[in-house]
Amino acid sequence: MSISSSPLAPKKMIKFKKLKGVSVSSLHCGLKKNKKDDLVLIKFSKPSLILAVFTKSNTPGEPIIWNKSIISKAKISALLINSGNANVFNGKKGKISVNEILKKLSYEMKIDMNEIYLASTGVIGEPLDHSKIISKIPSLIDNLNNDSESWIKAANAIRTTDTYAKYHSEKIQIKKNKSIFINGLAKGSGMIAPNMATMLSFIITNANLSSKNCMEKFKQCINKTFNSITVDSDMSTSDMVLLISLNNQEEKLNKKNSILFFEKLENLMTKLAHYIVKDGEGAKKFISINVVGTDTKENAKKVAFSIANSPLFKTAMAGSDSNWGRIIMAIGKSGVKINSKYISIKFGNNFIVKNGEISKKLNLKKINNYLKNSNIDLFVKVGPKKNSSTVWTCDLTNEYISINADYRS
Amino acid sequence: MSISSSPLAPKKMIKFKKLKGVSVSSLHCGLKKNKKDDLVLIKFSKPSLILAVFTKSNTPGEPIIWNKSIISKAKISALLINSGNANVFNGKKGKISVNEILKKLSYEMKIDMNEIYLASTGVIGEPLDHSKIISKIPSLIDNLNNDSESWIKAANAIRTTDTYAKYHSEKIQIKKNKSIFINGLAKGSGMIAPNMATMLSFIITNANLSSKNCMEKFKQCINKTFNSITVDSDMSTSDMVLLISLNNQEEKLNKKNSILFFEKLENLMTKLAHYIVKDGEGAKKFISINVVGTDTKENAKKVAFSIANSPLFKTAMAGSDSNWGRIIMAIGKSGVKINSKYISIKFGNNFIVKNGEISKKLNLKKINNYLKNSNIDLFVKVGPKKNSSTVWTCDLTNEYISINADYRS
Repeated sequence: MSISSSPLAPKKMIKFKKLKGVSVSSLHCGLKKNKKDDLVLIKFSKPSLILAVFTKSNTPGEPIIWNKSIISKAKISALLINSGNANVFNGKKGKISVNEILKKLSYEMKIDMNEIYLASTGVIGEPLDHSKIISKIPSLIDNLNNDSESWIKAANAIRTTDTYAKYHSEKIQIKKNKSIFINGLAKGSGMIAPNMATMLSFIITNANLSSKNCMEKFKQCINKTFNSITVDSDMSTSDMVLLISLNNQEEKLNKKNSILFFEKLENLMTKLAHYIVKDGEGAKKFISINVVGTDTKENAKKVAFSIANSPLFKTAMAGSDSNWGRIIMAIGKSGVKINSKYISIKFGNNFIVKNGEISKKLNLKKINNYLKNSNIDLFVKVGPKKNSSTVWTCDLTNEYISINADYRS
Repeated sequence: MSISSSPLAPKKMIKFKKLKGVSVSSLHCGLKKNKKDDLVLIKFSKPSLILAVFTKSNTPGEPIIWNKSIISKAKISALLINSGNANVFNGKKGKISVNEILKKLSYEMKIDMNEIYLASTGVIGEPLDHSKIISKIPSLIDNLNNDSESWIKAANAIRTTDTYAKYHSEKIQIKKNKSIFINGLAKGSGMIAPNMATMLSFIITNANLSSKNCMEKFKQCINKTFNSITVDSDMSTSDMVLLISLNNQEEKLNKKNSILFFEKLENLMTKLAHYIVKDGEGAKKFISINVVGTDTKENAKKVAFSIANSPLFKTAMAGSDSNWGRIIMAIGKSGVKINSKYISIKFGNNFIVKNGEISKKLNLKKINNYLKNSNIDLFVKVGPKKNSSTVWTCDLTNEYISINADYRS
C-alpha cells in the first residue's frame, strides 16, 4: 500500500535534542511486507523513572498486559517497539512471543526483565513471528545511537498507516548553561478515539519527575491533548503514552520550573496529538471544536466530541458545507442538558447562530468559502456557564473509506 | 438530487389493508425543491387512542415539542407530516409555524387542536415557510382516501434521502370472518442511531390497545426493532414512532390474541426497521450482528452496537474483508467486561475464532467470499452467559460520504 503524505502534514518539525543516557536503533526485521523499518530499540544507560498511561480497551494487546504487570516498579531500562503486527488476541502464542522476546533482550542487554517495556502496532489477530524480532536483537544493540537522525528513523519505523513520522522537542532553560529538554515521538492515524492513550507515544526528558504529583499532572496533560482528539471514534487495543525521566538529572525542578515543565510538556503533547489528527486517514481538513457554556468541563468535552465524532458533521466539512443543522443535531444527541436560547455557532469569525437565533449578519456564501480552508475553527456556546473544552478532529472523506476497505489487501 | 434505489431495496412490499375510520392524502406544497409530494394528512373519523415514543435529543424539533405537550391526553384526530424541512431550531418562528398550521387544521377539520399531531423531516435550521402548508390544507382535506395506493403515495411523500418508500402490513385472524390489521409506514436513511425512535414511523391498527400494559409492550417492541438499528450513529432531532388504535374496534383483544398482536407488531416494526437499514445512505450490505454471552441483555446490545457503529468494521465490510481484528477492537472498546477465552467469531457458518483461539478450520478465502454477499450474518460470543442481542446495520461506503458531503448543494 503506497499512500502519499497527508495534505495536512507539517512542513517542518522540531528535531530531538541530544540527551545523555538514552540511545536508539531501528531496522527492518520482516514484519512489514515492504522493506521498511519495523523494529525499534530504545536503551537507557541506567534504569529510569517511567510514568505510563495505557488503553482502556477490554481486549488489550499482549504488550499492554505485560507493561501493566511491571509498571508498579516504575523503572525502565529498555523499550522495544515493533510495527506490522499488534500481537493482540493471539491467545497463548501471543504470551509466548512476549516471553521469548523479553528473555532474549534481558540476556543480551544484561538487564532485568521487569525493566523492559514492549509496544506493538499493526494488524490484530495474526500470530506474531517473534523469531524475526529475536534474530535482530544483537544487531539492534550494536547500532544504538543518540543523534537526532536516529530518532527520526525510529519515528518512521513505528508508522503503520501514518503517512509521515511524528516527533517534536521542547526546551526549558533553567540556568544560564543548563537546559531541560523534552523529546517526544508518536504514531497514529486510524483507530483514534479518546479513551486513554489512543496511539503510541514515547516522551523522554532529562527533568527529574520523581515528585509525587507528577503522575497527576501528566494525566491532566493527556486529558487536554491525546484524549482530546478523534479521527474515527475507534479505540485501539495497543495504545500507550510513556513519559520517561532519564536517570541523570543533576537537580530537581523547583516550583517555578516545574510549572514551566508541564506547560512545555502539554505543548509537546498538543503538537503530537495534532500531528496525529492531521494524519487522520483520508483527512483533508484539521478542525478545532471549542465548546463553552456547560455546567462542567466534562460536559463541554462531551458536546465537543459528539460533534467531532458525528459522521454527518465530518462529511459536511469534507464538502465545505456549513450544514449547521447537523451541529444542532450533534449537540442534541450528546446527552448534555443545554438551553437553546444560549446557543451560538461560529466558524472562524463568522456567526451562524447567535444567542439562539440565526445571526442577522449570516452570510452562508462567506462561511462556505471559509470552510474551504484546511484549518477550520468551530466555536459553539450551549449555555450561560464558563466551562469549556477544545477537541480536534478531521473531516471524513472518500479516502478514509478507500484506505480502510482495502487495508489488508 | 437524484439517486437510484438502494441495491438492498426489497423487491416486493406488503400493501396496507383497508381500515375503516382512517384516510390519507398527499400532495406537493413546495417545500421540496423538486415537484415531489412533501405534505401528508392522515385523518381519523373519530378521536383515536395514540401511543407515542419520541427522540431523546436535547435539541428536538418543534413538532416533537408540540406532540409531547399533548400526548398525556392520548387522543388523535389528525396527523400532518411534511418533508423538506424539519422545523428544528427556528426559534420563535418555528413555534409560530406550528401554531398557524394547528389553527388552520383545527378550523378546517373542526377538531380540537390538542388532537392534532405534527411531524416534520428534512433540513434543520431553515425557517419553515408555513404559508405553503396552510394554503394546501383545504385541498388535502378534499382528497382524503383510504385505498392502499393512497398510503403508498403517503409513504413516498415523507421521504427525504430515502431511495424508496417503506411500508408493511400484518394480519391476525381472530374469528372466522373478523381480522385485525396492522398497517405501518416509515422513513429514514441517514441520521439513524438507536436512542428512542430514530426515524418517523406511523402505525395504525383496528386492535383495541386501551389496556394498561400496551405502552410497556410497545416500548419492548421498539427496543427490539427501531432501537436495534444504526446507520451512522447520528440521532435525529425529529423522530417519533406513533401507534394508533382506531376508534372502531368491536371487541377487546383476549389474552391469546393480545400475545399474537404484539408478535405481529414486532414483525411489522422489524420489517420497517430493516427497510430503513437497507436504505442506509450508500449501503450495499445488510449486516445482522448477534452477540451472546454477557451478564445482561443490555451489555450484549452494547457490544453489538460497538461493532455496528465502528467505522473501521463498516469499511472492512464494504471491502469484503473479514479484518476480524477490528471486531476484537470493537468488543474491547464497548466498555463491557468480557473474557477472551470465550470469544468466538463467526460469519455465516464460518468460524474465525472459536473459544478464544483462531479456528483450526479457518479459511479466510471462503470467508471473504461469503462477505461478498449483500446479506451478512455475524455471530459473536464474548462470555459464558446466555444473554444475547441482535442489531442491524449496513456497510460504510464512498457513497455515504458523497451523499452527505453534498446533501444541500
